[in-house]
Amino acid sequence: MKTKAAFLVEFNKPIQIQEIELEPLLEGELIVRIMAAGICGSDNHMFKGNDPRLKLPIVLGHEGVGIIEEIKSEKKDIFNKKLKKGDMVIWDRGITCNNCYYCLIKKEPWLCPNREVYGITRNGCYSEYLTLDKKTKIIKIEEDIDPSILVPSSCSGATSAHAVELCDIKLDSTVVIIGAGPLGVYCSKFISQKGAKNIIALDTINNRLDLIKEFGANKIFDVNRTTFDERKSYICKITGGRGADIIIDCSGNQSAIRDGIKLAAPGGSFLIPGVAIPLGNVPIELYEDISKKNLRMQGVWVSSTNHFSEAVDITLRNKNLFKKIISYKIKLNDINEAFLNLDKNRNIMKGVIVS
Amino acid sequence: MKTKAAFLVEFNKPIQIQEIELEPLLEGELIVRIMAAGICGSDNHMFKGNDPRLKLPIVLGHEGVGIIEEIKSEKKDIFNKKLKKGDMVIWDRGITCNNCYYCLIKKEPWLCPNREVYGITRNGCYSEYLTLDKKTKIIKIEEDIDPSILVPSSCSGATSAHAVELCDIKLDSTVVIIGAGPLGVYCSKFISQKGAKNIIALDTINNRLDLIKEFGANKIFDVNRTTFDERKSYICKITGGRGADIIIDCSGNQSAIRDGIKLAAPGGSFLIPGVAIPLGNVPIELYEDISKKNLRMQGVWVSSTNHFSEAVDITLRNKNLFKKIISYKIKLNDINEAFLNLDKNRNIMKGVIVS
Amino acid sequence: MKTKAAFLVEFNKPIQIQEIELEPLLEGELIVRIMAAGICGSDNHMFKGNDPRLKLPIVLGHEGVGIIEEIKSEKKDIFNKKLKKGDMVIWDRGITCNNCYYCLIKKEPWLCPNREVYGITRNGCYSEYLTLDKKTKIIKIEEDIDPSILVPSSCSGATSAHAVELCDIKLDSTVVIIGAGPLGVYCSKFISQKGAKNIIALDTINNRLDLIKEFGANKIFDVNRTTFDERKSYICKITGGRGADIIIDCSGNQSAIRDGIKLAAPGGSFLIPGVAIPLGNVPIELYEDISKKNLRMQGVWVSSTNHFSEAVDITLRNKNLFKKIISYKIKLNDINEAFLNLDKNRNIMKGVIVS
Amino acid sequence: MKTKAAFLVEFNKPIQIQEIELEPLLEGELIVRIMAAGICGSDNHMFKGNDPRLKLPIVLGHEGVGIIEEIKSEKKDIFNKKLKKGDMVIWDRGITCNNCYYCLIKKEPWLCPNREVYGITRNGCYSEYLTLDKKTKIIKIEEDIDPSILVPSSCSGATSAHAVELCDIKLDSTVVIIGAGPLGVYCSKFISQKGAKNIIALDTINNRLDLIKEFGANKIFDVNRTTFDERKSYICKITGGRGADIIIDCSGNQSAIRDGIKLAAPGGSFLIPGVAIPLGNVPIELYEDISKKNLRMQGVWVSSTNHFSEAVDITLRNKNLFKKIISYKIKLNDINEAFLNLDKNRNIMKGVIVS
Repeated sequence: MKTKAAFLVEFNKPIQIQEIELEPLLEGELIVRIMAAGICGSDNHMFKGNDPRLKLPIVLGHEGVGIIEEIKSEKKDIFNKKLKKGDMVIWDRGITCNNCYYCLIKKEPWLCPNREVYGITRNGCYSEYLTLDKKTKIIKIEEDIDPSILVPSSCSGATSAHAVELCDIKLDSTVVIIGAGPLGVYCSKFISQKGAKNIIALDTINNRLDLIKEFGANKIFDVNRTTFDERKSYICKITGGRGADIIIDCSGNQSAIRDGIKLAAPGGSFLIPGVAIPLGNVPIELYEDISKKNLRMQGVWVSSTNHFSEAVDITLRNKNLFKKIISYKIKLNDINEAFLNLDKNRNIMKGVIVS
Repeated sequence: MKTKAAFLVEFNKPIQIQEIELEPLLEGELIVRIMAAGICGSDNHMFKGNDPRLKLPIVLGHEGVGIIEEIKSEKKDIFNKKLKKGDMVIWDRGITCNNCYYCLIKKEPWLCPNREVYGITRNGCYSEYLTLDKKTKIIKIEEDIDPSILVPSSCSGATSAHAVELCDIKLDSTVVIIGAGPLGVYCSKFISQKGAKNIIALDTINNRLDLIKEFGANKIFDVNRTTFDERKSYICKITGGRGADIIIDCSGNQSAIRDGIKLAAPGGSFLIPGVAIPLGNVPIELYEDISKKNLRMQGVWVSSTNHFSEAVDITLRNKNLFKKIISYKIKLNDINEAFLNLDKNRNIMKGVIVS
Repeated sequence: MKTKAAFLVEFNKPIQIQEIELEPLLEGELIVRIMAAGICGSDNHMFKGNDPRLKLPIVLGHEGVGIIEEIKSEKKDIFNKKLKKGDMVIWDRGITCNNCYYCLIKKEPWLCPNREVYGITRNGCYSEYLTLDKKTKIIKIEEDIDPSILVPSSCSGATSAHAVELCDIKLDSTVVIIGAGPLGVYCSKFISQKGAKNIIALDTINNRLDLIKEFGANKIFDVNRTTFDERKSYICKITGGRGADIIIDCSGNQSAIRDGIKLAAPGGSFLIPGVAIPLGNVPIELYEDISKKNLRMQGVWVSSTNHFSEAVDITLRNKNLFKKIISYKIKLNDINEAFLNLDKNRNIMKGVIVS
Repeated sequence: MKTKAAFLVEFNKPIQIQEIELEPLLEGELIVRIMAAGICGSDNHMFKGNDPRLKLPIVLGHEGVGIIEEIKSEKKDIFNKKLKKGDMVIWDRGITCNNCYYCLIKKEPWLCPNREVYGITRNGCYSEYLTLDKKTKIIKIEEDIDPSILVPSSCSGATSAHAVELCDIKLDSTVVIIGAGPLGVYCSKFISQKGAKNIIALDTINNRLDLIKEFGANKIFDVNRTTFDERKSYICKITGGRGADIIIDCSGNQSAIRDGIKLAAPGGSFLIPGVAIPLGNVPIELYEDISKKNLRMQGVWVSSTNHFSEAVDITLRNKNLFKKIISYKIKLNDINEAFLNLDKNRNIMKGVIVS
């Protein structure tokens, strides 16, 4: 069987559509016809050569939804549902070995040294058809939903679920979300669903800030139009002077991080799921900002199947809401139109390549 | 009643012994005759004016053991033992309000904004007699023990207990302790008691390194005589290439911290109880060292009564061991001899002022 | 100063209104004029002599809201707000010592052996005026709210918060609440606020079941009109055959407990905040229901200030909702009218004695 | 390839040695020559038909150590070590699917509904040779050790590790272990290694009690020669009147359980890894023993690979100690000699069938 696929052959150069032959299916594998494949912020980094994990040539695209085109053996999704030709499915972008210290002893498969990722370490979803490895964790989608709405749940959604799992959200929590892109809106929705009292979002783009309010933020600050002191004094006012219990950086921006950490309450947590590419050295005042505050600064690296499943679930339960983060849809043949314009319009939340 | 006390009147200037009048006891208070008062690394910082919490003049000394000289009302220690004149006691150096968000809601009294500390925010133990506030948490010492051995349990010991509480020690854990001073040896003993497989200590002073082996470290590195790569490759070798699960900085030294964080395994924790005075900005590679490793960097600020109690307990159970950290004893009248020489001899673990 | 107070002198006999003299205030104490005092299910048990903690004579009433009538020294509530004459306040019904193993080491003050309780171990709120001990934890109420609405937050609300703290609520959790009285509706509201997917309430009284739907239950079962198998198969259907993740018994009813535990999923938790008086021996199938399911059965004993504060907060944020659990209001002089009829009408959620 | 294997064809009847043909190896499978296979207390239950999981005919034996006889594809153990013919290996007795809610979402693979177990749901180790499924989790043993010493780590050891993981052992913990058989001695060793202050073991057999002292118990009680009150007052004396923080029933004996729960401190935990076959209804005083004490009663069902790995590790680190639990070794042909005498001699800790 043949498929068209979009190969990144050289960084910063146009992606090339080529036709390749898919290998015959082995036991446990299946072939999906890609219905929708998301363009993630990290695809932009990879396109430019900023992600150290990438080796060329590669078919990018780690967020995908498809229809089963061919399936060989009896196979179930993770909720014990039988899979068959014609089913709509979404899958965990990461494949882990389930035979190592991180998979079995620590039970943190996101750190599995053998982890492979569609669209990053092996060919991904910017393709007509894709073969899924037998270890791929699949969720069958039985609801009637535009597949484009689901795609971000396999990356931004899952990583957000991981970040939120590492927060101890309480009903009186005050949470600051820095960056109102896909990661930020998923965090906001999860945290709002878990009942946190105050969710404050910061960004520089008005459209995004307006949007994140619909995902549960009850206060927004345009960082270009407010001062640090204004933001800090608002947060202190609503927390009896303490500061924010939890701060989640979804921006990966150095100065936003350095400002953000200063909004934390003693005993608070500062999470950095947004730091997804090398930032260089970031100066941190260890005494004032971490030691004296008994602060936890927490890295959040990718996600595992439980996070992915939570993200799919919250998306399915809020279809009309998550529909709003789809900025545009284009065809696979027009992929370069998307990639060559990624930096131009920061209003874009999420572009999707559709079949 | 009168008492001699040693007042720090000006930073970096000789401490002055003065006689003052103790106020008559109120309900719940008691007066102790100080038997032993420790000189902590932070006393040196305070003497020099490097601890932002201090206001002059003050009687320093936050680590003390004494004999009850006067007690007014019926009073018990925290283990329900009645206190009476003549009892040997040790007490939590911090007094917290038990009427605020941190004391009651978060149950993290070390962050109580009303926390007072003997020898830091109110007069301390470099004194013949000291009045203990009614909220002071006391432990009666019924064993026969040299009181000097106990003094470090009220500061280094308690803070170490706090740090170790924030670690998830398992039987297969590999722990690196940076800095083999009082904080380091307490951490090592606690962690060894909790069964961690590998405890690796780093320092630049041989005496300290030899000593920490007796407190449970099973591998030591003299940082001046080994390279970073030697240390790292040793740790990788014993951990299947992963790195250290837990790293505790007890040094407060910027370059030790920056090196140390690079020894951490993915999924590891890096704790900084040693960062007790302002260090300025420390450059941290957020992507490589925190984000990608899913690392937790954790501030550890002082301690509360549970930590203090653990430190007293481990000291009582290991008297002959902890005796080894007492470097010298001097009289209150000779206090300047100690303070003016604090930086001269880094071999000193702990000096004690005795009555 | 004199006050009228309602004394229980003999179990099951009419309560006697007597006038007594209040002692002059000591440092830190204050006198409140009781605005509203709740009648709790446990007051009924105490009235009948079924609560082993009670000693006669006593003024019952552990749930109260009042106005400060007299205050001697400067005093703050737990959120750092100054208290003065005329302020409306609510307080933690329990007074703990903050000087024992449970208060300081385990940080579980609900187990403090020196815990005293207004209306149980010392005189309570069925009184015109009440003196609050200096250790009482107070919350100042600045919102405009009928004080009757707030009273249940100091007992049922706080105990529910404790139960819910011991649950690990996730967005995909299925929770069964047995008993839709005050404890049940508070649990339901907390759990719904924390985002649990399915909340199933069981009771035998239709009014209560209808009411708990407004507090977040999304499925109700009248136990008299449905079979165990119907309930179980519903729960299995929505959980892929697993069963309920969390079951909270708010009934204290033996057969409800024995049925309830069989609804649990493997890996689930079964909490029993409703078991507040001796039930005798309850036969439990340890292998089938606990061992093989890796189940946790968890006792939930009273509450501490953090739970109380959560309950006050959720009540203030949902005034119009919690108003619905007030079944009637009567005057202190008519207290026997309430107590002599407590068993007659199981539709009653909460009676309140008002000034 | 042919193998002799010992088939249980009918409950309570002699086991039959038969010769069968092993299927040719599939990708990822391997054949081991069994060196040592343990006889577990649960094998006795299974032999008698008391374990509801069993279907006949079956080759029992869920604890095994072997030498790789044949291996087809490249394969690693869980610590990334390559496996080859001639390697000594031990393996997790359970095989889980890694494609279900319990494996992936809850990360509690011991509850995987598709879990298979060598010697329980599929043929086990009472055999000359055994084929290991490709999903089997293997640990390569590089140390020089009598394989008989290792066998109990795959069942009693792993289940004990699971129980201990569910305890919150602190340095001041007082732990009671009921039953000093293999489960009990592993629990004792783990808990002692984690530094608990007091470990009290109860049994009726002197040999076992003497032995468990070597595994860390610092106080033993012969239940036949002491009264409940003597045991309780000892525990109260050493805990300031509170009781035991943690109690682990390793006996599965109803009256031991009912007595044991009454030794718990408020806030304590009671774990029941010993309840491995149906016990019928056990009467529990829910108010006095669970509710009022805020007690956690915790089921402990089997184990997963992390527990198994901890058990192997503690055994390897304490070879000479664990050697002491081997009561006798016999040949496969003499298996009935062992099984027909299992109830006769309660002094037996662990019998091993060797090649």
